Amino acid sequence: MNPLQKLDKLRCLMALSDFDAYIIPGTDPHMGEYMPEFWQIRSWFSGFTGSAGTLVVTSNFAGLWTDSRYFLQAEAELKGSGIELVKLKVPHTPEHVDWIVKNMPVGTRVGVDGKMISVDSVRMIKNAFEKKQMELITNEDLISPLWTDRPPIPLNPIFHLDVEYSGISRTEKIEKVRNEMKRLNVTHHLITSLDDIAWLLNLRGTDIQYNPLFVSYLLMDMQSANLFVNETKIVPELLEGLKNDGVFVFGYDDIEEALSKLTKGDSLLIAPGKVNQFLFDAVKPGVTIVEGPNPTTLMKSIKNETELANLQETMVLDGIALVKFFFWLEKHIGKEKITEISAAVKLLEFRKEQLVFKGLSFETIAGYAAHGAIVHYDPTPETDVELKPEGIFLLDSGGQYLSGTTDVTRTVALGVPNEEQKSDFTLALKGTISLSDAVFPEGTKGYQLDALARIALWKSGINFGHGTGHGVGFYLNVHEGPQSISPNAAGPASNVIEKGMVTSVEPAMYREGNHGIRTENLVLCVPYLKNEFGSFLKFDTLTLCQIDRNLIEVNLLEKEELAWLNSYHANVYDRLSPFLPDAECKWLKEKTAKIDF
Amino acid sequence: MNPLQKLDKLRCLMALSDFDAYIIPGTDPHMGEYMPEFWQIRSWFSGFTGSAGTLVVTSNFAGLWTDSRYFLQAEAELKGSGIELVKLKVPHTPEHVDWIVKNMPVGTRVGVDGKMISVDSVRMIKNAFEKKQMELITNEDLISPLWTDRPPIPLNPIFHLDVEYSGISRTEKIEKVRNEMKRLNVTHHLITSLDDIAWLLNLRGTDIQYNPLFVSYLLMDMQSANLFVNETKIVPELLEGLKNDGVFVFGYDDIEEALSKLTKGDSLLIAPGKVNQFLFDAVKPGVTIVEGPNPTTLMKSIKNETELANLQETMVLDGIALVKFFFWLEKHIGKEKITEISAAVKLLEFRKEQLVFKGLSFETIAGYAAHGAIVHYDPTPETDVELKPEGIFLLDSGGQYLSGTTDVTRTVALGVPNEEQKSDFTLALKGTISLSDAVFPEGTKGYQLDALARIALWKSGINFGHGTGHGVGFYLNVHEGPQSISPNAAGPASNVIEKGMVTSVEPAMYREGNHGIRTENLVLCVPYLKNEFGSFLKFDTLTLCQIDRNLIEVNLLEKEELAWLNSYHANVYDRLSPFLPDAECKWLKEKTAKIDF
Repeated sequence: MNPLQKLDKLRCLMALSDFDAYIIPGTDPHMGEYMPEFWQIRSWFSGFTGSAGTLVVTSNFAGLWTDSRYFLQAEAELKGSGIELVKLKVPHTPEHVDWIVKNMPVGTRVGVDGKMISVDSVRMIKNAFEKKQMELITNEDLISPLWTDRPPIPLNPIFHLDVEYSGISRTEKIEKVRNEMKRLNVTHHLITSLDDIAWLLNLRGTDIQYNPLFVSYLLMDMQSANLFVNETKIVPELLEGLKNDGVFVFGYDDIEEALSKLTKGDSLLIAPGKVNQFLFDAVKPGVTIVEGPNPTTLMKSIKNETELANLQETMVLDGIALVKFFFWLEKHIGKEKITEISAAVKLLEFRKEQLVFKGLSFETIAGYAAHGAIVHYDPTPETDVELKPEGIFLLDSGGQYLSGTTDVTRTVALGVPNEEQKSDFTLALKGTISLSDAVFPEGTKGYQLDALARIALWKSGINFGHGTGHGVGFYLNVHEGPQSISPNAAGPASNVIEKGMVTSVEPAMYREGNHGIRTENLVLCVPYLKNEFGSFLKFDTLTLCQIDRNLIEVNLLEKEELAWLNSYHANVYDRLSPFLPDAECKWLKEKTAKIDF
Repeated sequence: MNPLQKLDKLRCLMALSDFDAYIIPGTDPHMGEYMPEFWQIRSWFSGFTGSAGTLVVTSNFAGLWTDSRYFLQAEAELKGSGIELVKLKVPHTPEHVDWIVKNMPVGTRVGVDGKMISVDSVRMIKNAFEKKQMELITNEDLISPLWTDRPPIPLNPIFHLDVEYSGISRTEKIEKVRNEMKRLNVTHHLITSLDDIAWLLNLRGTDIQYNPLFVSYLLMDMQSANLFVNETKIVPELLEGLKNDGVFVFGYDDIEEALSKLTKGDSLLIAPGKVNQFLFDAVKPGVTIVEGPNPTTLMKSIKNETELANLQETMVLDGIALVKFFFWLEKHIGKEKITEISAAVKLLEFRKEQLVFKGLSFETIAGYAAHGAIVHYDPTPETDVELKPEGIFLLDSGGQYLSGTTDVTRTVALGVPNEEQKSDFTLALKGTISLSDAVFPEGTKGYQLDALARIALWKSGINFGHGTGHGVGFYLNVHEGPQSISPNAAGPASNVIEKGMVTSVEPAMYREGNHGIRTENLVLCVPYLKNEFGSFLKFDTLTLCQIDRNLIEVNLLEKEELAWLNSYHANVYDRLSPFLPDAECKWLKEKTAKIDF
């Protein structure tokens, strides 16, 4: 079936249901960033494979809303599909809803599969629809009947993450969540986000690319934690272990019935941004709904001591791979053919040398020269270019280890950099240093810190169009809430940066057509001091990898910034050198040598 | 009538109205920061004269909620009143509402005078009351019947502010507002905030201390601007001028009737945080209410070229007064008796030398030694202390000039400062410099910039408990929206800092029992540059007054910071010296001499 045929058939089904428009969101029933092919409905239907995008189909129009990262890709992939690219003015905004309100007549009936959209989003849409008496119908899935050769939901095995990595047993975690439920005065709690479930139960899976998750729902009460998942994914021994811990397994689709059995007197805690409308509707009127973030979200963001000790070790493992890679790159560049993709593969090989390495934590961004200026550029065989002993190479990559998740960006000069390249690199680096070296009072929110990473760039008339930092999971999602560092106080950056949280620091600069520059480290929030003015926190930088000295314009650094850099480099060498072969060790010594003011 | 008798009588009236509680807010029908005595109900009733506080009276309890600035004062003033001080945990929050919800039974009936509370606040309270089925009744004023010797609403004359100061005629301003009304598709617009009315009509008054305002309402439609004000305040000539400009005068109390005459088909723009509930209720159902900020609020915050040229001149006038004062202080300290109050009076005398000076823009904060650490300390005869040739003196003051409003804080050493004093001063000064010297992209909001003013203090484990900056009016309120610079993204700091706005920059540090330090300037937002990364803005510092070099620990300043200071001081000298007597001029030359790195 080609896209035009799909479009025709969908329009038939829409007519049968009296829908004037149908929305196909780009997410899944678990509101995940990545999802199994089974739920890649928008990709299947439209042919557009980008990670973000929403489709709206009417009787005489079909449009795909996506952001500037994907304009070129979407144009190419949508060719001949009958679907138009609609360019989002502001990324991650529901401009398609505004379009419907503006372009469709009063009383329009709009359908969307309630499984694929959150309670929050449904409310937002209904609210926008009100002024034109439009209707949103969420209980009809028009795609499943069309998608006859649909791949199955993955049945990959689930495995237990030992307490030597997780630090706290699942019974202890469940107890903590129950305490929070008591505080909130609820009898039940539904968790639908896969990283929350994986963290709480100390389980991991491989259903989703890059994220070590398994498809499931969890419904907790004060006695049991009921896990809705295909039982074949769990070996009997683990099943028994779970049962002993009060975790009982039911079929994945049984969640609807379980929710419908809640009765008056029950009270259910849900996170309306994470729970889909279909499950929300399964709850009978009369059950008290209490809305709030999943308690697990904050709990998992604050890493425990075992996780932190593991993470420190993981940074050494990841650092070894990075040093070996950059050493190899420097020695081989210009002598053999190296491309963006082959470089990414080489780095993966070095990471694979570690026993606890389980895979990448996201698609490697390997952008040479002008490609570096394309935010979220993932090289494909069609775009792949050869690296030459000149210009700038941006490499943003990360690993999933049993002992933690990494995310690191380094930008290196493959030849002798020019003044502009050095100035650009150093201004962005000043942002990384300024934020990494910050001290702030307890209670500070991510949006408050964002400008520290930008002010040096701003003063040179430069800015970058993405957030400055995101939370990172522990052998979980590389993008994890609740915190973030960004200028947008309406989003996760309105959450407090707390002691024990791991966040990325990644100011950047992109000179279109020339190069992209980013120095990204993970930092841990730790106590600094306590006095009559209150308690203060700071960051410890976790990531261990040299920052390219060739790209640093020392004159642009303040004394304090240079001190940070020298101290960071000394630590990188101290921590990594014991584990490096002689040649790499000697090389790293030079790369991390002290720079004098 | 003493406070206990007032309490008894109020409780009788409450019983007659079946109220279980009665709220007396600390504001007036125009939601002003300052108000005429006529509306100082909370002060009259309780005896507590602080600028912020809310009273709640029940049959067996009476409590006054205020913030830490006023704890000592409130305790003293409430003694014997039968009213308890309730200490706000977080300033400016409705903790009294939480108290009512928590402590009063289900179904409680609570009264408040709808004239004294905004539409927004009523909604917030009703929302909080919902969970306990409490009722808020807003149409009964129980205070007026009790206050028999109530002073009248002021009848002070209103005067025209010439276009040589205001820059734009009232007809042009009215036209601009009408354009905005068209854009919002409304037929009427109610303005109740006195500074918005004064700005729009190019009128000023003296009804309110420190703010050059007059008590009135304005109801605009597409043909006329109807001003509700006591007509005796306007001389016939001005009345005629207003009429010619389409501004028609009605009695102050006629506003209710005028609103009640709006009919189906009319649509009314109101700002729900500024309009009181009584007026809102006067509008008949069927009239379309459109809620949004008063268009005048943004318009008046962006100063026009005439206002800016005037303001630059005003800074010279204010600077002359400040230099003369600090020169006098240095020459006379230790030689004659100078107290906090007498110093403030002396400074006022110097300001009065200027013909266009009309009065102070707020009560002068003159805090010597430990008093400086009390935020918003206004010396009273009871607290006044003598200044000695030692220690630190904080002086925060401002003037209302026909040609603009000023607000400036300087902190000076009256003797030889010690290391801690110098370090404290310099760390806070680094904040002033860092923010004043910032560059930022168009669209940046106040909360994004706040940390720039704090990071140097934070790194030394110091913080200050108030915002960093507020908007300032043009010969209008010294605190003016919409913008502010503060850590709180939920408040005015969520508004964009725009070209032409005037904002204070006032990071501070308070060492309790020792000293308070603040260096405050007004800054103007101006364009910086435009390139492929977008348009960037910066600040120009308007305030002209030396910063005490004796308190600066040069080693704590970065090269760039010192460059800012030297350049600022050079400008202060250049701008002020032509207007200073020889002795003061020579003295200023020394005070603003270049500091070498």
